[in-house]
Amino acid sequence: MSSFLITGSSRGVGLELIRQLADKPISEVQTVFATARTNSAPRFQELLREHPERVIFVPLDITDESSVTRAVELVESKLDGNRLDVLINNAGVSKFGSLEEIERQRPSPITNSFLPLLRKGNAKKIASISTSVGSFALQENFRNYPAPSYKISKAALNMLTQLYSQSLDDEGFTVFCVSPGWLKTDMGGSGADLPVEMGSEATLDVVFKTGREGNGRFFNIHVPGWEKNPGLNQYDGGELPW
Amino acid sequence: MSSFLITGSSRGVGLELIRQLADKPISEVQTVFATARTNSAPRFQELLREHPERVIFVPLDITDESSVTRAVELVESKLDGNRLDVLINNAGVSKFGSLEEIERQRPSPITNSFLPLLRKGNAKKIASISTSVGSFALQENFRNYPAPSYKISKAALNMLTQLYSQSLDDEGFTVFCVSPGWLKTDMGGSGADLPVEMGSEATLDVVFKTGREGNGRFFNIHVPGWEKNPGLNQYDGGELPW
Repeated sequence: MSSFLITGSSRGVGLELIRQLADKPISEVQTVFATARTNSAPRFQELLREHPERVIFVPLDITDESSVTRAVELVESKLDGNRLDVLINNAGVSKFGSLEEIERQRPSPITNSFLPLLRKGNAKKIASISTSVGSFALQENFRNYPAPSYKISKAALNMLTQLYSQSLDDEGFTVFCVSPGWLKTDMGGSGADLPVEMGSEATLDVVFKTGREGNGRFFNIHVPGWEKNPGLNQYDGGELPW
Repeated sequence: MSSFLITGSSRGVGLELIRQLADKPISEVQTVFATARTNSAPRFQELLREHPERVIFVPLDITDESSVTRAVELVESKLDGNRLDVLINNAGVSKFGSLEEIERQRPSPITNSFLPLLRKGNAKKIASISTSVGSFALQENFRNYPAPSYKISKAALNMLTQLYSQSLDDEGFTVFCVSPGWLKTDMGGSGADLPVEMGSEATLDVVFKTGREGNGRFFNIHVPGWEKNPGLNQYDGGELPW
């Protein structure tokens, strides 16, 4: 039985990740901590009502340090034996705009804040929901995708994740990035490749199956039928270049 | 005749870059705008006194927007015909510490602020002083270099630079990163590879010689004799991996 914490759970991929985690057998998923700034979104409220024992709403504004502290205290108080097994860093937004309107973003303090609880966990797994859009090697493909703050913050997230994979290696952690694909969320738009359910399922597959050998890597999802897509997005379950 | 603006000029590589620019013939370098938070450092003051016409101190705290605005106004008022040719983004610090003490850094707003003046320039060149320490591909080599904020902010700077190289391409800009080598500055320490004079000279060589073909690239310096160094740092004038 494992405990999960997912940031940015009130919509998009985050909402779908907690929905799918809540549907897994209790032997795989015991408790899901779902963080979001508020629980005002109707679909999020509905999900919380459906799983009152298993999915626990944790108010968390990642830009507010006192909010982070309170969130850690709440999670600790609700945890069975204070074990937190898996952290999924998902919070983040893609705002469109030009480079001249760039916003200042910063690596999230979330991993640091929950490390003491993760150290007591069994899985010791930290997954960062990244994107191929933040890849240097693939950047030429995204020349016309006008989301500079998103690209820069994801490059920073990727480096942060790589550094954690090094510094927590000796403690037996598995820290990695996964790109959930181009999904039909509010952010991805209706012209995206995959339904959010499909991308989230494939993302959770990566989270569950990745063991110590995956420490420090950047994974693509695997979606049957998309392995040889002639376009950019070949969801072949391989690794993505940084 | 060209005008240059270098951020972080009061010490280290920045100070040496303005010193060497000030020694170049007037046909190559007309005016050097040297930004720093203050002009209190003795060696910086001395340099400003030696070149009262050619090197102009511009007070600038890159974390303070009103300071940035005032700096742009000062530079504009001093510029001949309002042309600024070359921007060298150098400001940045390497603080040692663990990932758990990580600081929040952010891409600098400097490029945006000076773009209107650079657009009127002839060279239309923007060089970011980066480092191989911010490279994903080389990261394993820096596992024991405890400067996570520095690594993350340089990865973000590299992505910001790559995005500018795309967005300003049609306007004829040349935007690139250059790693000045591991230098014997306060930051680099006395065990570093190269004297700061040598690394700065090699960096300026890259800045001067790089034309449109270098847009969007990440350059290593060239130091004769270091091309086949058996260690990490082969200063062969080639490109570095992101």
